[in-house]
Amino acid sequence: MHTVDIIRKKRDGGELSSEEIRHLVQAYARDEIPDYQMSAWAMAVFFRGMSDRETADLTLEMVRSGEEVDLSAIRGVKVDKHSTGGVGDTTTLVLGPLVAAAGVPVAKLSGRGLGHTGGTIDKLESFAGFSTSLSQERFAEQVNEIGIAVMGQTADLTPADKQLYGLRDVTGTVESIPLIASSIMSKKIAGGADSIVLDVKTGSGAFMKDEEEAARLARAMVGIGTQVGRRTVAVISDMNQPLGQAVGNALEVKEALHTLRGEGPADLTELCLTLGSHMVVLSEAAETVEEARRRLEEKIADGSALDKFREFVEAQGGDVRAVKEPDRYLPRADRVVEVVASRSGTVSALDAEEIGLCAMQLGAGRETKDDVIDHAVGIVLRKKIGDPVEQGETLALLHGNDEETLEAAEQRFLNAVTLSDHPVSPPRQIRGIVTDEGEKAE
Amino acid sequence: MHTVDIIRKKRDGGELSSEEIRHLVQAYARDEIPDYQMSAWAMAVFFRGMSDRETADLTLEMVRSGEEVDLSAIRGVKVDKHSTGGVGDTTTLVLGPLVAAAGVPVAKLSGRGLGHTGGTIDKLESFAGFSTSLSQERFAEQVNEIGIAVMGQTADLTPADKQLYGLRDVTGTVESIPLIASSIMSKKIAGGADSIVLDVKTGSGAFMKDEEEAARLARAMVGIGTQVGRRTVAVISDMNQPLGQAVGNALEVKEALHTLRGEGPADLTELCLTLGSHMVVLSEAAETVEEARRRLEEKIADGSALDKFREFVEAQGGDVRAVKEPDRYLPRADRVVEVVASRSGTVSALDAEEIGLCAMQLGAGRETKDDVIDHAVGIVLRKKIGDPVEQGETLALLHGNDEETLEAAEQRFLNAVTLSDHPVSPPRQIRGIVTDEGEKAE
Repeated sequence: MHTVDIIRKKRDGGELSSEEIRHLVQAYARDEIPDYQMSAWAMAVFFRGMSDRETADLTLEMVRSGEEVDLSAIRGVKVDKHSTGGVGDTTTLVLGPLVAAAGVPVAKLSGRGLGHTGGTIDKLESFAGFSTSLSQERFAEQVNEIGIAVMGQTADLTPADKQLYGLRDVTGTVESIPLIASSIMSKKIAGGADSIVLDVKTGSGAFMKDEEEAARLARAMVGIGTQVGRRTVAVISDMNQPLGQAVGNALEVKEALHTLRGEGPADLTELCLTLGSHMVVLSEAAETVEEARRRLEEKIADGSALDKFREFVEAQGGDVRAVKEPDRYLPRADRVVEVVASRSGTVSALDAEEIGLCAMQLGAGRETKDDVIDHAVGIVLRKKIGDPVEQGETLALLHGNDEETLEAAEQRFLNAVTLSDHPVSPPRQIRGIVTDEGEKAE
Repeated sequence: MHTVDIIRKKRDGGELSSEEIRHLVQAYARDEIPDYQMSAWAMAVFFRGMSDRETADLTLEMVRSGEEVDLSAIRGVKVDKHSTGGVGDTTTLVLGPLVAAAGVPVAKLSGRGLGHTGGTIDKLESFAGFSTSLSQERFAEQVNEIGIAVMGQTADLTPADKQLYGLRDVTGTVESIPLIASSIMSKKIAGGADSIVLDVKTGSGAFMKDEEEAARLARAMVGIGTQVGRRTVAVISDMNQPLGQAVGNALEVKEALHTLRGEGPADLTELCLTLGSHMVVLSEAAETVEEARRRLEEKIADGSALDKFREFVEAQGGDVRAVKEPDRYLPRADRVVEVVASRSGTVSALDAEEIGLCAMQLGAGRETKDDVIDHAVGIVLRKKIGDPVEQGETLALLHGNDEETLEAAEQRFLNAVTLSDHPVSPPRQIRGIVTDEGEKAE
């Protein structure tokens, strides 16, 4: 099999066979295909796309290039949730305890990663003593016992995807729907999930700025799931502004606790209930999405969602006092600066990307993997798009430990806010749902 | 300047600036841009094309990446001819002496190269004693004295083009009109030509199978010439069958001598007169193509074209007796095998590619640069497309030195010939002319 012939076939609009895709991925993973052929192929894919079958084949070959997590010791249908990434995304912290309380086994393998704030593990480490260093056995046991566990990802999942992603990043071939879709799905499948719920963000703060592009990505990923026998649902959700109010680690934990009490921000609550009800249905713990949503609302109302969070923190060695009294037992910044409006108006834009960078500047995230995260710092938004603001009113609170950084962050934050003289409607949080039976706009 | 941004700009249909193209070519030539970025860019160019300005910039940067030949010591307007490559192409051997006789200074830098037969230097070395190892001074002197000289190419012309061509060959990015055009034109410009006549072959035996594709390539090359101030004319000519009758080194020399005497095959003669008259006009030795053609016909008729060949061979140390008596003084094969028709009919196809490989099998060409060429061997066609053939009549003569090879070549040759029961028209040799003033079909 000549690699150049495979490149030419794709270039000329042909559909690659399963054998051809296997050759590309496995020989590339063994360094037998040079980067310069793989990048030419990726550029051809950018222009020609891939069929559903090709995309599924690519995904499975990525999975086969590395280790696969075996979750078979855990009872029930394991449903994983994945977000395409945004700013202030507290959903994982809320969803885990919430759906676990409703009977979905939550076996979460998580990383730290780079970004505006830490990963799920970093956020959970806001609880003093919280540990994610579990053995494989203890991990499975804990999920079977209390329905939820989070452990650090150690397996070498999808190395071919890592290699290809690194190459795409420097060759202008990132923005290809089938390549993005197979990259995401391969990691979820290698992670052992039986079913997958995807949160595909769209808007100015998301990778997919355009809603139609986000829908295409959602369809591609659901298509892969269908092809490889993993039931998959994608929710297309708004990311034109940060989700909820908190951007930061301990601040997001506190927001998650509020939300589990039924006192969270409307957009975050709505997204969690939407994603959660699909997780409950895919896990076969409810028949319909409506029934699942009612159940989740009950779990919030009767306190069992919050109880589940407490149980979870306790099981992993965290200080449970913080669940009841977060203001006292979670890390707190030395200083809180109020950012006030210099004029009256209606918030018409909150640049999520800039606000994320602002939180990072305060110390909430990592630029390189050696950076140390400050759990206490971050931002709490007081106004969101559509909210009226009076001159002198507080727009947000900046939590920081360093005077100088706080001053710079304040200026940056103000530049990220746009006020209008006219009324503005808040963006709809849920833009559409894509399932293997089709899609509906919300 | 970030290379990935340049790739993305081209990918998204943008026009690269002169600075961006300079960066790509020069940094690539210095190995500062890796192959994987260059191949992704080349694939983006395959899909997006390049504007005339970009193509001209790319060409000039290729030229600047290496040495440039200085022909300023030679008087007059130097016109170079280039063919996109075919089988049995004896035009260079005919055209040199022919246009030199009409007053065009012919300063030919030539190579050996790989292929079905040798390069121009190999063919000329069929004359015992012929040498192309001239000094730069002697080369210029000879052109000034007798109007024609051929020397071996020693300068390191367009190294960036060599590097990029090698990469394109293995990444499925050869078939891009602007990349092909800039590759060819950069070599001609670095070779010092003032004006350029291009022979763009089309048909089953050519790289450009499709006539419209050939015309696009012709227009792209003439466009580059216009942009960089080198007058350029492209002749689109037929390569559905080998040109002329001879495929081989000494055999093509003999055919060239016939043609210079006015006794050559019609297709070869027509192509040489067409290419030659444009060379004469570009060299400013005639006002119109019609006047130039009349002059060339006179030079054949009065024997001065053949005399010029003799003078040329003598000046470079070759045995001039071969000019008068080629059968006696040019290398001859030990054996000549007649290939006869097994049935009657009309020749409807002569697979040029296969006939070329057949000549190569007999020893006429090089597969690798270390192969030794046999000047004597090759093929002489007796029938061409459109010719009627009786059963038992000779289709061709195979000249070889080895019984076994001849047998295999005979079978291969027969497979390359298609006979029809219906009359077939011979293909028109000249398909179109592209100049900086537009183009006309012939």
